Amino acid sequence: MKLDFDKLGGLVPAVIQDHSSGRVLMLGFMNEEAFRQTVETGFATFYSRSRNKLWMKGETSGHRLVVKEISTDCDRDTVLVRVEPLGAGVCHEGYRSCFFRTFQQGEWVITEERSYDPSQTYGGLK
Amino acid sequence: MKLDFDKLGGLVPAVIQDHSSGRVLMLGFMNEEAFRQTVETGFATFYSRSRNKLWMKGETSGHRLVVKEISTDCDRDTVLVRVEPLGAGVCHEGYRSCFFRTFQQGEWVITEERSYDPSQTYGGLK
Repeated sequence: MKLDFDKLGGLVPAVIQDHSSGRVLMLGFMNEEAFRQTVETGFATFYSRSRNKLWMKGETSGHRLVVKEISTDCDRDTVLVRVEPLGAGVCHEGYRSCFFRTFQQGEWVITEERSYDPSQTYGGLK
Repeated sequence: MKLDFDKLGGLVPAVIQDHSSGRVLMLGFMNEEAFRQTVETGFATFYSRSRNKLWMKGETSGHRLVVKEISTDCDRDTVLVRVEPLGAGVCHEGYRSCFFRTFQQGEWVITEERSYDPSQTYGGLK
């Protein structure tokens, strides 16, 4: 049984969840090679659609994602990766999770505090 | 601030998480109308890529997803919907979560028990 990369042009969405808190941290995309590298290295690796290349999460920031468990869904077209996140936060904007905005009365509201200063980690890079 | 539906041809991935257990239950896709209906009805509604139409999860099975909170990520191209799932399971194959297979030594292994009999819920339908 293999993952189905065909439904999304060679990619599967990869949901990244903190294995201890259960918090959903981010969503990335993996192609077959990113999935293989994730399994082989034990660090979550994605395919960047904008840069058209593989990237290991944390290669710039050090905030790597140590893989604890990988699941797939009934259609085998999505993976759920439970991880131990290294560093102060997964999001490049300075938050523990990329999902730091909540929908309230028709608006997206920032509902958590920054856990680190991204300018110290990423410098002038965005 | 609006969601960015452009990166994926009018869709955003929607991660569905059980708000009490923290378990990730499924991943669907929403277009702008599905997102609007999700907000307005309070039940998670998706866009089916294969059937090319909106579907409210649970319209056949009764296993609706009651929306508790909606978040978006830093890029505003993914939503995380925390729900109370109604019924015995979210997955049409009879499991609480669609993510019932885990990767172990290179194989996808079913790692949980069925929570209901799908033939009683979906009849002969798949």
